[in-house]
Amino acid sequence: PEFRVAILTVSDTVASETGPDHSGPRALAVVNSSSEKLGGAKVAATAVVPDEVTKIKEVLLKWSDTDKMDLILTLGGTGFTPRDVTPEATKEVIKKETPGLLYVMMQESLKVTPFAMLSRAAAGIRGSSLIINMPGNPNAVAECMEALLPALKHALKQIKGDKREKHPRHV
Amino acid sequence: PEFRVAILTVSDTVASETGPDHSGPRALAVVNSSSEKLGGAKVAATAVVPDEVTKIKEVLLKWSDTDKMDLILTLGGTGFTPRDVTPEATKEVIKKETPGLLYVMMQESLKVTPFAMLSRAAAGIRGSSLIINMPGNPNAVAECMEALLPALKHALKQIKGDKREKHPRHV
Amino acid sequence: PEFRVAILTVSDTVASETGPDHSGPRALAVVNSSSEKLGGAKVAATAVVPDEVTKIKEVLLKWSDTDKMDLILTLGGTGFTPRDVTPEATKEVIKKETPGLLYVMMQESLKVTPFAMLSRAAAGIRGSSLIINMPGNPNAVAECMEALLPALKHALKQIKGDKREKHPRHV
Ligand code: NA
Repeated sequence: PEFRVAILTVSDTVASETGPDHSGPRALAVVNSSSEKLGGAKVAATAVVPDEVTKIKEVLLKWSDTDKMDLILTLGGTGFTPRDVTPEATKEVIKKETPGLLYVMMQESLKVTPFAMLSRAAAGIRGSSLIINMPGNPNAVAECMEALLPALKHALKQIKGDKREKHPRHV
Repeated sequence: PEFRVAILTVSDTVASETGPDHSGPRALAVVNSSSEKLGGAKVAATAVVPDEVTKIKEVLLKWSDTDKMDLILTLGGTGFTPRDVTPEATKEVIKKETPGLLYVMMQESLKVTPFAMLSRAAAGIRGSSLIINMPGNPNAVAECMEALLPALKHALKQIKGDKREKHPRHV
Repeated sequence: PEFRVAILTVSDTVASETGPDHSGPRALAVVNSSSEKLGGAKVAATAVVPDEVTKIKEVLLKWSDTDKMDLILTLGGTGFTPRDVTPEATKEVIKKETPGLLYVMMQESLKVTPFAMLSRAAAGIRGSSLIINMPGNPNAVAECMEALLPALKHALKQIKGDKREKHPRHV
């Protein structure tokens, strides 16, 4: 596959095995079913961590710096509760912000539910990896991916260094 | 009431008593009329400060750290003039950003006037307090509150530590 | 003219003279044709730099601190490729963020193409200068300017210190 994807479930209950991981398997299915539109994408790694900045950062750094994943999706931990710290961990790791991805995820999610405004998702680039925070809700993961799909393959190609001149509309 | 709200009018003219405070009373009325939708909310404090980062921060820190207000609304100081510094003061105080709240306030305000794009409002969480910058214009305050109401009670409950599992759509 | 505008083309190929500058001339034409709506605006300087943070910052600092430009537009370098660093350079220079301008540019650009979500544009105020990142694509520059025009004159007047009380809707 052209792109290697890693999926990180961030959840105290899943990490402590006191609850099932609904989001991880759903995100995996979403990526696999979107593989063709992404120009060939395969989930190469999955992991589960509790809602702790240190633990989240550890996995994000390994997947970007060591494993050179093309796309890293986090699931959960983007809400308003005291334990929700996925965006804070992500912002400490990314080198370049990608606000347009957040804009379209918010725009589309709000069409489904006003509770989407409670997402504090962050997104950005570290090295050759694109890191995107997604909600923990399994359906919301599919909606967010749907919002990104029209330009996501293009985004991943750009990060790999494709010349802007070859793009239909360089930005 | 379940939630205690504090309202800070940020304005050189109001603080120096050379002009009346139109925004403060309007915001108070808006909160009171929204009380039921917020699951019981009451304005527990109001204050007026000039457009100065130090003065703004002082009140925000007292209301969040000492008085444990649930919701802190600032009014004014979010524009492009040299004296507009409310967002800068707010960003120094918040620990977690809440960009979705800004998105819906911008989305709804732009339906009323293109001048809404001149809002530089910030919003975020400090401890158990949600701090939201609102415009100084009294009508705009009502519009922004309207935009937040569908999820604001939920936001305030989450900040107080409600388990995400109990939420209709955790994020 | 009331407002002096400066236009910075950020492009390795244009800077090395291995490719033509399509965006610069187009942006200049857009500003000139918008001059009346801006209350009198004239392009007072143009420059070209490669995609390097240091070079970009150098020009932005000169144009804001020394030349006191009212409006500085950058063109290009806002995408996802490793060389795209215009937003990073801009964020190091601005003192106040202006997220509403980014919101309306994103909103309008997405109506034209989903690739607009790949813009990582930043915008903000330094001293009396408003700095806005625009895409490198010549058509996109016109679309972004169109999105800003309803409030841009107002923005530039506010930065110059106009009293908020004189505004139709202070924010
Ligand atoms: Na929108």
